Amino acid sequence: MSKRPLILISNDDGVAAQGLGVLTDLMCRLGDVIVVAPDGPRSAASCSISPLTSVKISLLKEQPGLKVYQCSGTPTDCVKLALDGLLERRPDLVVSGINHGDNASVSVHYSGTVGAALEACMKAVPAIAYSLKTKSQQCDFRPYEEVVMQTARYVLEHGLPEDVLLNVNFPEVPQLKGTRVCRLGRGRWMKEMMQVGEGEYRLTGYFENLEPEAADTDYWALDHGYASITPIQLDMTANAYLNSKFTIHNS
Amino acid sequence: MSKRPLILISNDDGVAAQGLGVLTDLMCRLGDVIVVAPDGPRSAASCSISPLTSVKISLLKEQPGLKVYQCSGTPTDCVKLALDGLLERRPDLVVSGINHGDNASVSVHYSGTVGAALEACMKAVPAIAYSLKTKSQQCDFRPYEEVVMQTARYVLEHGLPEDVLLNVNFPEVPQLKGTRVCRLGRGRWMKEMMQVGEGEYRLTGYFENLEPEAADTDYWALDHGYASITPIQLDMTANAYLNSKFTIHNS
Repeated sequence: MSKRPLILISNDDGVAAQGLGVLTDLMCRLGDVIVVAPDGPRSAASCSISPLTSVKISLLKEQPGLKVYQCSGTPTDCVKLALDGLLERRPDLVVSGINHGDNASVSVHYSGTVGAALEACMKAVPAIAYSLKTKSQQCDFRPYEEVVMQTARYVLEHGLPEDVLLNVNFPEVPQLKGTRVCRLGRGRWMKEMMQVGEGEYRLTGYFENLEPEAADTDYWALDHGYASITPIQLDMTANAYLNSKFTIHNS
Repeated sequence: MSKRPLILISNDDGVAAQGLGVLTDLMCRLGDVIVVAPDGPRSAASCSISPLTSVKISLLKEQPGLKVYQCSGTPTDCVKLALDGLLERRPDLVVSGINHGDNASVSVHYSGTVGAALEACMKAVPAIAYSLKTKSQQCDFRPYEEVVMQTARYVLEHGLPEDVLLNVNFPEVPQLKGTRVCRLGRGRWMKEMMQVGEGEYRLTGYFENLEPEAADTDYWALDHGYASITPIQLDMTANAYLNSKFTIHNS
């Protein structure tokens, strides 16, 4: 059996996305790579799964150290299928992306890219989600390669705490100013539904940063030319409120 | 304009689900009610949204104090559409469910029921997700009505902290032992993919509780006949790890 690390890759833009190809090339420098990605775009798939249909998978490409599969399901389905059906051994790392579009602040909740990494984290596999703040499907990813390699090498070497994954976002710049380890910023999407017909709407809108001056947030990092590295966790319990011992009817 | 509270209801089992009907009847005792729910099952839709298609909405039913709409999108689409297109004023409360199937522990990440409540929370509307641990589409919801009313009344009266919502789960029992305010338990879904053909799989599996003895968790409450009430939060930042000042390459 290979002594090289085994790295699983997924995304939500689909198996043909440029960002997935870039991430695959980079990860092939670090280990043996299996890609299991959706067969088409699944943007904003969040952690959704497919309980009502079967999920199909097919091998697209095989060469030494690399296999690429496409899957009819969601990003989370892809990771479940890889970990629970396809892979002969447990991967050492799961990476997701590089997403075309940022996944900072509350967007972690909508993101299929983050969803795939969360699924790996739930199964105790160290995971990183990578996203680029762009609206383009063709981008120059070279400015971000060094940080991708650094973070992946770091996690392969040191692991991550239980139930924690990394969420990495890049601003679209010719050269990064550096990296910032930071929290998720507070923000919300606004004016999201545009009426396009009688009883028919389309998603649109813009992101409102609720704390644009807060230099310890991911959006601040992106707005100022830095890559953001945010550890996020599975546990969503609101501990401060829980510990305030609010009483509804606690018998 | 009515002085009665305005309550928005959604779910992920679809507009025809029994649990939604029960929740609607209960909320009509507390205020004016608008239901915007998916036109069919969207189980495990998580916080997914529909950026690639338009979303259609139609009025199914109108009577004094109640309007019921069905929507072609996800639970999160339903809430976005209600808050950003349909409602003439901001609701005082958003409730989601009552889901057929529990949404405790890590299942909060997959749940469209929780997703709908999270979306309301992102828009600063107090929100509660309700779920029943059952595999049945026809259940006796009477044992849970009192807790639904108590929690909804509590939130209407006291509100919730910023960026916090309530996740309420019920065990399927003839009579609740009581309620427990508790954290999300640690657990994971196992053996999730069953091969049903060549390259074809179906979701299945079972939940493994990783801390069955922990009496401060939601799963413990459900396993012991109590309703669980868990405050959960939008912010997924892993603050303990962030504050450990781990250094990848923080320039």
